[in-house]
Amino acid sequence: MSDQRILRPKPISGFPEWSPEIRSVEQAWLDHIRTGFERYGFASVETPSVESLDVLMAKGETSQEVYTLHRLQEGAEGDSSDARLGLHFDLTVPFARYAAQHFNELTFPFKRYQMQRVWRGERPQEGRFREFTQCDIDVINADQVPLHFDAELPRIVHEVLTGLDLPAWTISVNNRKVLQGYYEGLGITDPVAVIRAVDKLHKIGADGVRAILVDQVGLSERQAAACLELAAVKSADASVVTEVKRLGVESQLLDEGLEELGFVLDSLDDLPAGSVVADLSIARGLDYYTGTVYEAAFDDDPGYGSICAGGRYEDLAGEFIRRRLPGVGISIGLTRIFAKLVAEGRITPGRSCPTEVLVAVPSAERRGDALRIGAQLRDRGINTEVFHQAAKIGKQIQYASRKGIGHVWFPPFEDGGEHEVKNLGSGEQTTADPESWRP
Amino acid sequence: MSDQRILRPKPISGFPEWSPEIRSVEQAWLDHIRTGFERYGFASVETPSVESLDVLMAKGETSQEVYTLHRLQEGAEGDSSDARLGLHFDLTVPFARYAAQHFNELTFPFKRYQMQRVWRGERPQEGRFREFTQCDIDVINADQVPLHFDAELPRIVHEVLTGLDLPAWTISVNNRKVLQGYYEGLGITDPVAVIRAVDKLHKIGADGVRAILVDQVGLSERQAAACLELAAVKSADASVVTEVKRLGVESQLLDEGLEELGFVLDSLDDLPAGSVVADLSIARGLDYYTGTVYEAAFDDDPGYGSICAGGRYEDLAGEFIRRRLPGVGISIGLTRIFAKLVAEGRITPGRSCPTEVLVAVPSAERRGDALRIGAQLRDRGINTEVFHQAAKIGKQIQYASRKGIGHVWFPPFEDGGEHEVKNLGSGEQTTADPESWRP
Repeated sequence: MSDQRILRPKPISGFPEWSPEIRSVEQAWLDHIRTGFERYGFASVETPSVESLDVLMAKGETSQEVYTLHRLQEGAEGDSSDARLGLHFDLTVPFARYAAQHFNELTFPFKRYQMQRVWRGERPQEGRFREFTQCDIDVINADQVPLHFDAELPRIVHEVLTGLDLPAWTISVNNRKVLQGYYEGLGITDPVAVIRAVDKLHKIGADGVRAILVDQVGLSERQAAACLELAAVKSADASVVTEVKRLGVESQLLDEGLEELGFVLDSLDDLPAGSVVADLSIARGLDYYTGTVYEAAFDDDPGYGSICAGGRYEDLAGEFIRRRLPGVGISIGLTRIFAKLVAEGRITPGRSCPTEVLVAVPSAERRGDALRIGAQLRDRGINTEVFHQAAKIGKQIQYASRKGIGHVWFPPFEDGGEHEVKNLGSGEQTTADPESWRP
Repeated sequence: MSDQRILRPKPISGFPEWSPEIRSVEQAWLDHIRTGFERYGFASVETPSVESLDVLMAKGETSQEVYTLHRLQEGAEGDSSDARLGLHFDLTVPFARYAAQHFNELTFPFKRYQMQRVWRGERPQEGRFREFTQCDIDVINADQVPLHFDAELPRIVHEVLTGLDLPAWTISVNNRKVLQGYYEGLGITDPVAVIRAVDKLHKIGADGVRAILVDQVGLSERQAAACLELAAVKSADASVVTEVKRLGVESQLLDEGLEELGFVLDSLDDLPAGSVVADLSIARGLDYYTGTVYEAAFDDDPGYGSICAGGRYEDLAGEFIRRRLPGVGISIGLTRIFAKLVAEGRITPGRSCPTEVLVAVPSAERRGDALRIGAQLRDRGINTEVFHQAAKIGKQIQYASRKGIGHVWFPPFEDGGEHEVKNLGSGEQTTADPESWRP
């Protein structure tokens, strides 16, 4: 083979790939999250990886990040039938399209989870990938969505993340009605502009936000100060309602928002203190949120960005169906969380293979016995390999040891003889019965 | 809302999407297959959905089917860094690249499974999709791969497919050395051309193949007849060896191939008769197969195409690494199988949600009790919804019934009172203890 013919493959930036040992942990995480979602009655939905560009662009926001598909030989065949397909950049737009398209087949309130890869044609940087997995839950209904769900979603996320043994994190909750009502109570005419400015608080600081509010949005110094006063409110429980009321601003929308926020926090008061907190600086820039909003981050690295986010929206799929579909949803940024922990060496690698026991093949004559023992163990749900050839026992033990297989099984030397199993951890070797032994 | 603003979404041809009831069956299939692969000690690998075009084109075969990625705004930013990425069209090329790239981190023989979506820019037709899921297992090694695995792979596929309750199917096995050795024994100088012609047998029939062999490959009538005689051999067991030998052709390679084929069939003789058969007409057109080849099809619809396929190759990743990596692999066409059964109404829809019990909320005051009962049941691994608002009991039962939830739980009317559970199937209502009840 000449050197030129070897194409040494390199990792593609922004497209994570794991060794088998890390992948087995990722798979365990995915199973854990799925089980957690199903425990609350959410049903699995998967959508194609692509949507038509019309659908992806229906909200017109994220055009920059979309990967479009082209057939490599398109020019040659003069065919452009696929030219209008793009990879989905989140799971919300595909779910909106799905809910509209299958509206008549779904039972409402419809609770779905969706765990899939999404793609964004972004420049990769810390915490930003071009291919990554998101785990979304949403509840939508055909008229209104009870507030019950605003409290249930962070509870589910709390439960799921708790099971993953992450570095400390906090779920922050706020309510857009509180922000909007408070701003209106201050006599501000463009509350959305204020929300957008406050959303930058963690990046540019209070003085930066104040400057935008006064210079660009046109607030008085007093109004700007009052907005920053609200954004500074944080509370681990429903006492947040009193704290905000103490600021002395009044509006009906504010009262409504505070009631909702209080309901959510009260409903979660059985969770460990500080795991879900009210943080009035959380704004979520996206226009479609209208009530509760969520955002979670690592306590020791808030600048890494949100690891989950979501909120309540008045209408999911207005672009696709003449039915209002309000809902509330939250998305876990699985890859963003997992990749950070991998990079920091905080993921304990799993096993390199799922095998629990290796059945040794001491000689070609006894291969049939070994195969039968393997089948017996597998029938009992034990992950079993039969060694792939007759070989010296030492070589077979070495194979098991290199692969992290915990036990080696030795078939009896003669018909009716004793089976033995060696525990490679302890070195202990004991007799065993393939009908009852457990690893 | 004006009519123009509604974009009615339509299914995209070639990109299957399922209702929650069908999706739950697909998920059960995927879990079943995964468990089956792990039972034999195969480790999970996932690769990015994209590879660089260099990698995808390394074998230079399937250029027509590749979807390339482009950033929608690429022109505007003048950036073409992603222009050389394409979606993978199978899981073999990505695995070859993975094995080469991570060679030093893997333990050999390396047994991996990979269950992912793949994409082909083909014109959709029956059994052909543009996005579909494949479930692959491969064993590769750094020098040689024991024949043990040639027998193990069809055994795994047999076990996995048996658990899926499919219409009758057969796994056919052949060996490329038998074909090549037999053709060489007949004095044929271009055995590969004969393999390609015989591969068309099921499409164009014996006369069509004979015509190609005589007119295009240049065989004598006698040679062509002998080739067709071999292709007609079928056998449910290792007696195939005797049958082929009876044809009177001799070559060392043929003997070697027959020994391998006999070994594979002998090793599988405990499986139900007819589930894995020798079929000497199976050629698998792909050049890289060098020994055992596999192909499975539905008995009642062989023309639908193969539902699994694979074989033994001398070198997986020669384009990417200066190490020979021989192996043997087989791929289950999950979507091809599943979509056919869905289309034919042969999939019994699953539940529309995973909920096993709905806890009723008879009044707002008792919502807290209902939430606690829900948490208790979930802690015990029971998928539980708490109804989302206080409402008439009839409405709550109706919700459970529409969603196919089997049981409704009624919290006690007063502290210390009795819990009751209604079985919606039987209509029976009994007292129950949240600490011990099982659905």
